[in-house]
Amino acid sequence: MAGDPERPDFEERVRSSFAKQGLMSTLGATLGTISPGVVEIGILPHAAISQQHGFVHAGAVAAIADSAAGYAALSLMPPGTGVLSTEFKINLLAPARGDRIVARGRVVKEGRTLTLAQTDVFAESDGREKLIALLTATLMTVEGREGVRD
Amino acid sequence: MAGDPERPDFEERVRSSFAKQGLMSTLGATLGTISPGVVEIGILPHAAISQQHGFVHAGAVAAIADSAAGYAALSLMPPGTGVLSTEFKINLLAPARGDRIVARGRVVKEGRTLTLAQTDVFAESDGREKLIALLTATLMTVEGREGVRD
Amino acid sequence: MAGDPERPDFEERVRSSFAKQGLMSTLGATLGTISPGVVEIGILPHAAISQQHGFVHAGAVAAIADSAAGYAALSLMPPGTGVLSTEFKINLLAPARGDRIVARGRVVKEGRTLTLAQTDVFAESDGREKLIALLTATLMTVEGREGVRD
Amino acid sequence: MAGDPERPDFEERVRSSFAKQGLMSTLGATLGTISPGVVEIGILPHAAISQQHGFVHAGAVAAIADSAAGYAALSLMPPGTGVLSTEFKINLLAPARGDRIVARGRVVKEGRTLTLAQTDVFAESDGREKLIALLTATLMTVEGREGVRD
Repeated sequence: MAGDPERPDFEERVRSSFAKQGLMSTLGATLGTISPGVVEIGILPHAAISQQHGFVHAGAVAAIADSAAGYAALSLMPPGTGVLSTEFKINLLAPARGDRIVARGRVVKEGRTLTLAQTDVFAESDGREKLIALLTATLMTVEGREGVRD
Repeated sequence: MAGDPERPDFEERVRSSFAKQGLMSTLGATLGTISPGVVEIGILPHAAISQQHGFVHAGAVAAIADSAAGYAALSLMPPGTGVLSTEFKINLLAPARGDRIVARGRVVKEGRTLTLAQTDVFAESDGREKLIALLTATLMTVEGREGVRD
Repeated sequence: MAGDPERPDFEERVRSSFAKQGLMSTLGATLGTISPGVVEIGILPHAAISQQHGFVHAGAVAAIADSAAGYAALSLMPPGTGVLSTEFKINLLAPARGDRIVARGRVVKEGRTLTLAQTDVFAESDGREKLIALLTATLMTVEGREGVRD
Repeated sequence: MAGDPERPDFEERVRSSFAKQGLMSTLGATLGTISPGVVEIGILPHAAISQQHGFVHAGAVAAIADSAAGYAALSLMPPGTGVLSTEFKINLLAPARGDRIVARGRVVKEGRTLTLAQTDVFAESDGREKLIALLTATLMTVEGREGVRD
């Protein structure tokens, strides 16, 4: 990959921040493809992340979808800044079950202070993908705040 | 507690369903007060549920807030039905940190098919509470669907 | 256009329903392209639909975006049913001004009861388009309710 | 009314800005009670603001609810600033019909840059009120931007 000349370290930046998210590790989530403005996070359905009917809990789906959106945004942000979600909205279209759940976040509109990103969440079963959730998030670029960086 | 004559088992129903949510156990979440249409869920900040700056991850906040909204709704639903979130929206007002995070869900409007609920999420520090997030959720009453009950 | 064999009258259905929306006429909104699952609505910025700084009011942007999403959904619904919005979310990315505002609604996922649609809203200026808003809506298919049809 | 010593002109500020919103006049909307952080806007159902079944269009409901939230926020903002909606979410709970529709906006959390507000929308019929919609909005305080003030 040629990389983005303005953000040469976007991938390392995302991977290193992701590694600090205790929740992602607790959920068993893993990073997939990373490009400038696009980040993929996957998770395997299992009992430890379930809701009461055995599906993956909407909160776990939202967690990886929010992280995918946030890292898609962070991958485009200036060095030395950090990212925080200010709000998100998720529509849950079908129960989250199958072989694997994958969240694909992408930046819709980059702004100086606020960035809009969307994440499509798919359930993979027998090699086929089905859209199960759609998340829209507003991410804030945070500068010069103690402890909020990358 | 006098209880609701129409839903005598609402508390047992919520507790028994909550116990099946693997994610709640994984996050270390616990049920608090339960009344008809109102459910409280708490969580203690720790590294296993953190985001990259050490705050509780927005996904973990959303997970307990969504469950609190869902169980507030379920506490009013007819016996034999189940509850599913169809969408939710969360505004994150301040970093989730402190001694404890508590989510208080309440039903705003009960409907035959769709119920609207809201959850206020507070951070407790030194005995004081601060509103850190507000979630609005649409819950669907599910009847007669295999495996979707309580 | 070949049309959709299952919904031969989708265009007439949308046009005839749109003509009954008093608000669309009051706002000066007009229908553009209509395909199965995709509907476009446009509006010309003018003082009668402004907010206090002279931009098009977010409520007017939301109105055409919601109608575009709703008609995208209606274009796929079974004959004899009607459509109602149950909720929508809009992110306002830039002030709504320019030569023309155009809302392009499309169905993301069709369901028996609930359909998810999204609308991109663009401002056109000097022949160029800029994304100014993104709306996500849940539409309900209504059957057999007095007065709620098309 | 005693007024807020820090914002002595909040009511005049809101009324004067509201008077500049061409859309409010076009919809026939009127300001009701104004207190610091709380603003009411009403509207009479009529054909010019209807959707296809004769109810008030969700876009008109959203417009007054968004303005009520925005003005609730503006009433608390420092002099010389302006307010813009960055996003809102509305749940439509029942058809908007009756003698009058009234939107009551209130600030949930004031921030330096972003303020969260909520609006309850009621339909009045025969002297009784019914909750028909709930809107949550993020408002941005804008300073020093040409043309964006009050």
